[in-house]
Amino acid sequence: MKKNILVIPGDGIGQEVTKWGKAALEKIAELYSHQFSFDEAIMGHVAIEATGDPLPDETLNKAKNSDAILFGAIGHAKYDNDPSAKVRPEQGLLKIRKELGLYANIRPILLFDELLEASSLKPAILKGTDILFFRELTGDVYFGEKTKADDGSYASDLMNYHRYEVERIAVKAFEAARMRSKRLCSVDKANVLETSRLWRDVVQEVSKRYPDVETEHMFIDNAAMQLVKNPRKFDVVLTANLFGDILTDEASQIAGSMGMLASASIGDGTGFFEPIHGSAHDIAGKNIANPLASILSAALMLEISFGLKEEAKVITNAVADTLKTGYRTTDITNTSTAQDYILGTADMGAKVL
Amino acid sequence: MKKNILVIPGDGIGQEVTKWGKAALEKIAELYSHQFSFDEAIMGHVAIEATGDPLPDETLNKAKNSDAILFGAIGHAKYDNDPSAKVRPEQGLLKIRKELGLYANIRPILLFDELLEASSLKPAILKGTDILFFRELTGDVYFGEKTKADDGSYASDLMNYHRYEVERIAVKAFEAARMRSKRLCSVDKANVLETSRLWRDVVQEVSKRYPDVETEHMFIDNAAMQLVKNPRKFDVVLTANLFGDILTDEASQIAGSMGMLASASIGDGTGFFEPIHGSAHDIAGKNIANPLASILSAALMLEISFGLKEEAKVITNAVADTLKTGYRTTDITNTSTAQDYILGTADMGAKVL
Ligand SMILES: CC(C)[C@H](C(=O)O)[C@@H](O)C(=O)O
Ligand SMILES: CC(C)[C@H](C(=O)O)[C@@H](O)C(=O)O
Repeated sequence: MKKNILVIPGDGIGQEVTKWGKAALEKIAELYSHQFSFDEAIMGHVAIEATGDPLPDETLNKAKNSDAILFGAIGHAKYDNDPSAKVRPEQGLLKIRKELGLYANIRPILLFDELLEASSLKPAILKGTDILFFRELTGDVYFGEKTKADDGSYASDLMNYHRYEVERIAVKAFEAARMRSKRLCSVDKANVLETSRLWRDVVQEVSKRYPDVETEHMFIDNAAMQLVKNPRKFDVVLTANLFGDILTDEASQIAGSMGMLASASIGDGTGFFEPIHGSAHDIAGKNIANPLASILSAALMLEISFGLKEEAKVITNAVADTLKTGYRTTDITNTSTAQDYILGTADMGAKVL
Repeated sequence: MKKNILVIPGDGIGQEVTKWGKAALEKIAELYSHQFSFDEAIMGHVAIEATGDPLPDETLNKAKNSDAILFGAIGHAKYDNDPSAKVRPEQGLLKIRKELGLYANIRPILLFDELLEASSLKPAILKGTDILFFRELTGDVYFGEKTKADDGSYASDLMNYHRYEVERIAVKAFEAARMRSKRLCSVDKANVLETSRLWRDVVQEVSKRYPDVETEHMFIDNAAMQLVKNPRKFDVVLTANLFGDILTDEASQIAGSMGMLASASIGDGTGFFEPIHGSAHDIAGKNIANPLASILSAALMLEISFGLKEEAKVITNAVADTLKTGYRTTDITNTSTAQDYILGTADMGAKVL
């Protein structure tokens, strides 16, 4: 198979971990005689520093012309603590999501048995958890009109959805549910929000086309609670952009660490694959970030964008084996981890390869 | 002390549990020779059934003329699954919050040592956790303008804040932080939302008036994660209406159960005290709901609205003693709870009294 892959390391630890996602793809190409060619581009804080623009046209063009994108992370504390900054790294990520029509963000909460003890949740609560999130990614309060009074006395963001936006992601989630345990939970706040009532209405309608899938509706506050109380309750979870942002980060604790979770953003064209963790500037450049989420993002790319299921499985198995042998990055150690098995970013990446 | 207290049991288990919050207040009046007089009013689904209005004028008038309000719960599945319903129970709750100017919702995450084992989180992670949430309650996407296309193709909710709305709740939270461990974490999504940037700007400004309080800003997705990963990290948490709704429900798992958490809503006038749990129609009328959140809401009323600290402490101690003796409602049992110590609503309420 011949594919052009664009690598965008982005900010902070994105630089370190994305190397290993890319290395995993190269290894697969070698093992299975695929021809993967790689290009690289900038986005986020690094792009602002270089060009003034968090998503330079060159990056966007390369992205549109590639077969899949491996992305690292975005963001920088400098902007976080300056509410008045006009140009911000995150604008780059939001723009590329919109421009590529990446309306479906798929976040599997993959729980490796070896990491049962790494979580703050009790192993007995976690065991057997397997959740697949479908987060809407190009609508909601992320993209509605923003206003801000000149004198700083007022600000607003419009939360909104069109019917078709809800429908297309709902269809993707129901299709996935049909292939799994046939249970779908849609999360909203329909007791307060008009947007959520539209959401619920559309999901109810789409659910009629999937009578084999058991559909449940849950309020976001309750879902945030149930996810901690009884994560096994969930299988496919379908939700809006903002609620999905919150729930998937929360759910990362099921997998032991944010450093373990990959995500796929798909839609109209090129797929976009990234860890769900952020740029984590506090640990950037220290060779301690967990590269597994980037490596697992590469596996998702192989499976979802290229249909290479076996190759994807080889990567996931390599990660599982490495964990089984006892190797850990600091974020997934616990008190019983042997000191010599605690690895830095590069060593962990190399072990998986 | 002479006080007029309005009791609004509301919907579902609100009817059962609020009895015990009221009984606790009566007991305190008796023990300390206070004169508490009680009136009752309807709100929510029960009010819609009786009058067509989730918040009848009579209830609102009584509320405005009382010294404090003890509320139960609101909501009914009938409306939840009917996105097109125009009249909804929750409108009653939102309207009374607005009409009484209850802009600050205070939710203490009180962790009884006896319940360490009842949580899905590991006891070692939980031990020593003590969080006080300040959730803004009369602004945000809850109250902004809503629109809905006639043909059902579009819906929107305006998320917005005025500077003064953020400032007044920030001041309350900083004042509380000053009296506690002098740490405050403000939660927002300033990397995406204009409203959050205003929020952060105001909190930064107010924090200058409290140089003795260590202020941190955190994104909501990260906060939802950290709350599970390391709840001890938090002391006073200040956040907007929607984010507070989500985080406090999630945090209920720290206390072992939603059935344990009380809340105080205060602002311009009469204080409003309620459990954070909902109407839970699935268990309503079965005498299994946990009355402790209502009883602890009564304690918050004594402390916050009437300044009766000792009386409040007597209630909290009675709850702690009852738990120490081993009594549990079903929501807070675990495998080691002796069968004869599992009590229904009424028996648990009676034990505390
Ligand atoms: C960086 C930020 C804009 C982004 C989001 O909120 O979508 C991130 O948190 C994510 O989940 O991908
Ligand atoms: C019932 C609902 C409107 C309410 C809210 O979202 O505020 C509830 O969840 C709460 O937290 O008090």
